[in-house]
Amino acid sequence: MALIVQKYGGTSVGTPERIKAVAERVIRWKSKGNDVVVVVSAMSGETNRLIGLINAISPSGSAREKDVIVSTGEQVTIGLLSLALQEQGCDAKSYTGGQVKVLTDNSHSKARIESIDDSAIRDDLAAGKVIVVAGFQGVDEQGNITTLGRGGSDTTAVALAVALKADECQIYTDVDGVYTTDPRVVPNASHIPKLSLEEMLEMASQGSKVLQIRAVEFAHKYDMPIRVLSSFDKDENCKSTLVTREEDIMEKVIVRGVAFNRDEAQLTITGVPDEPGVAHKILGPISDANIEVDMIVQNVGSDNTTDFTFTVHRNEYDKAKEILCETGNKLGARECSGDNKMAKVSIVGVGMRSHAGVAATMFGALAKEGINIRMISTSEIKVAVVIDEKYLELAVRTLHDEFDLDKS
Amino acid sequence: MALIVQKYGGTSVGTPERIKAVAERVIRWKSKGNDVVVVVSAMSGETNRLIGLINAISPSGSAREKDVIVSTGEQVTIGLLSLALQEQGCDAKSYTGGQVKVLTDNSHSKARIESIDDSAIRDDLAAGKVIVVAGFQGVDEQGNITTLGRGGSDTTAVALAVALKADECQIYTDVDGVYTTDPRVVPNASHIPKLSLEEMLEMASQGSKVLQIRAVEFAHKYDMPIRVLSSFDKDENCKSTLVTREEDIMEKVIVRGVAFNRDEAQLTITGVPDEPGVAHKILGPISDANIEVDMIVQNVGSDNTTDFTFTVHRNEYDKAKEILCETGNKLGARECSGDNKMAKVSIVGVGMRSHAGVAATMFGALAKEGINIRMISTSEIKVAVVIDEKYLELAVRTLHDEFDLDKS
Repeated sequence: MALIVQKYGGTSVGTPERIKAVAERVIRWKSKGNDVVVVVSAMSGETNRLIGLINAISPSGSAREKDVIVSTGEQVTIGLLSLALQEQGCDAKSYTGGQVKVLTDNSHSKARIESIDDSAIRDDLAAGKVIVVAGFQGVDEQGNITTLGRGGSDTTAVALAVALKADECQIYTDVDGVYTTDPRVVPNASHIPKLSLEEMLEMASQGSKVLQIRAVEFAHKYDMPIRVLSSFDKDENCKSTLVTREEDIMEKVIVRGVAFNRDEAQLTITGVPDEPGVAHKILGPISDANIEVDMIVQNVGSDNTTDFTFTVHRNEYDKAKEILCETGNKLGARECSGDNKMAKVSIVGVGMRSHAGVAATMFGALAKEGINIRMISTSEIKVAVVIDEKYLELAVRTLHDEFDLDKS
Repeated sequence: MALIVQKYGGTSVGTPERIKAVAERVIRWKSKGNDVVVVVSAMSGETNRLIGLINAISPSGSAREKDVIVSTGEQVTIGLLSLALQEQGCDAKSYTGGQVKVLTDNSHSKARIESIDDSAIRDDLAAGKVIVVAGFQGVDEQGNITTLGRGGSDTTAVALAVALKADECQIYTDVDGVYTTDPRVVPNASHIPKLSLEEMLEMASQGSKVLQIRAVEFAHKYDMPIRVLSSFDKDENCKSTLVTREEDIMEKVIVRGVAFNRDEAQLTITGVPDEPGVAHKILGPISDANIEVDMIVQNVGSDNTTDFTFTVHRNEYDKAKEILCETGNKLGARECSGDNKMAKVSIVGVGMRSHAGVAATMFGALAKEGINIRMISTSEIKVAVVIDEKYLELAVRTLHDEFDLDKS
């Protein structure tokens, strides 16, 4: 007998019929002797409906009140799923984030979970109940309702799984797991049955949309295995991806997958007098403007100057460039330039740790196709390059072939 | 400076525009130096939408889970109204029933308020905030979400006003107060500027739909004045009805108004052997079937038998008659009969206490029009009669004229 936490997203609970189908699935797991805790999102469309009401009144209003409103979406789903479970003869009980309680800090709309009180849930599990918990929400010390930000239900599920010491955290979504790359770009992309949490973290942050990166970080920190499954598969023995500790994965391939991100923009400032603190002087104003910086590369230039390049989301390009050029003037830089039609392609795999030459193979494959590399950034288990966006598909296919990922 | 509790119903907060208009009104009261606590219902249509979702899954499901779902309606409104107030420069803060906290018993869907913790609200009022509270909801001792039943927002408002020792509880609705009778039946019905809580109780229970009877009972118990106003009037100096302690009303008219109720059915059982406990034997089975009995009249018959008549809602007539006739057989009654096309007409007024002959005047006026009275029931401040439904409008107009209510 295992304790399983399952999370169903908005599409999986989008209609009363789908909620009934989720109830059937939960009951199948329960009837095999498992204890089951279910975390749900708002019905698809509901959060947007609520945001529409908010925007009709006060788009830039208080985050506290917005959380009060938006958190009702999940509250409706927990009630409906509990009713559906009861209707099918299964003893079920719903919990809001506050009822659990999921204690968070008071950063409304992007709160972080500080602790989870698992005592009430444990009692109800011991009494044979299925527990249905509202994802995405919590309360702060003062009892104010908080939300974790979009996709926060994944984080709720992982955090609950950690608190309850669950055997597995299952994330049901509309795909049956993680692939070596996006099948829309490479049709023969192959399904990955198992990968490490570190790899998933690199894949997710590089643009794979299957799991929320904060949830994976949480799972990584606490060694909680996550299984990604499709809520549209009828049979629970079908394909899934288990994201787990590196030690639990037998086959350590060199490259697990190719991740990519289209909407990149690159900004460069050259000939900046090199002195301690120059990086902070350049990036401080960008960060003060709430612009998120992704890759950063600094090179030593000539004559005691330095060249500095970084990437931002394409939507932030104009604002970032204006700020950067202003900073450049102040610092006496030679030139400030940029390009907003860039893309990022990464290869990810824990096997890289013990295999030299992976980066070289990657650069060689891209060079053979005439793809110019504009930036490079590496971690222990990842090599990322920034290229012209027009080469994105070609680069992804080339790397997928080069590392034989269709056979994985 | 006064402390005012205001309650706005579903129609008053039915759209973002109406919510903004409510915010303007609240700010006008606040800017005159009053402390203001606002209680709101769900946006009109929202509760029905949620019940539709429930019925698509489990119409007869657990009341606890239904309360979890239905209570989200008010939660959305408190957030939206707080945003609208803030947007117009007014410091506002929302409270769910649980956050207040409004402690109730655990009778889900028809919970009764046991206590209200006013400490947090008092602190926020002292800090100059307008407080927006979700009506209709509370929590039980275990933290389960409860609801007070339809129209429960009025009760929340009165209970909060009592807890906070407010100067007045204002109920905003789509009419500008209480009238001597329904203006759709008597076009020259006149507006009542002031009436006593006892009179309102009799008017409400006799069919006037302006205020929830439980709220009036609550106000009566704790001597809390209620003012009924229209949320569609622009100016707060316009018409309203103050429902207050009898002592505070100068002018004690004999008849304050004519109330009526269309959907009555009358059931009679005659020739029942008269013995102690016979009333309970007759009405027990009716009440066990959850049928609400309104008027009850018992007469002594001939030969140590008794005749027993009562009224129920028309929808319950068939069921009630079946049960009654069965009981009649067991008790050896002579006859069991009924009529489901009845109506009830009442005259209400605290002045009746000191004026004899009011009932006689009423019966005389009805007799002059050839209206046969089928049942009579009286209280200190009310005389109610049951008549054939076809005479209803005629009876109401006749009594309205007879007691000169168009001049009140």
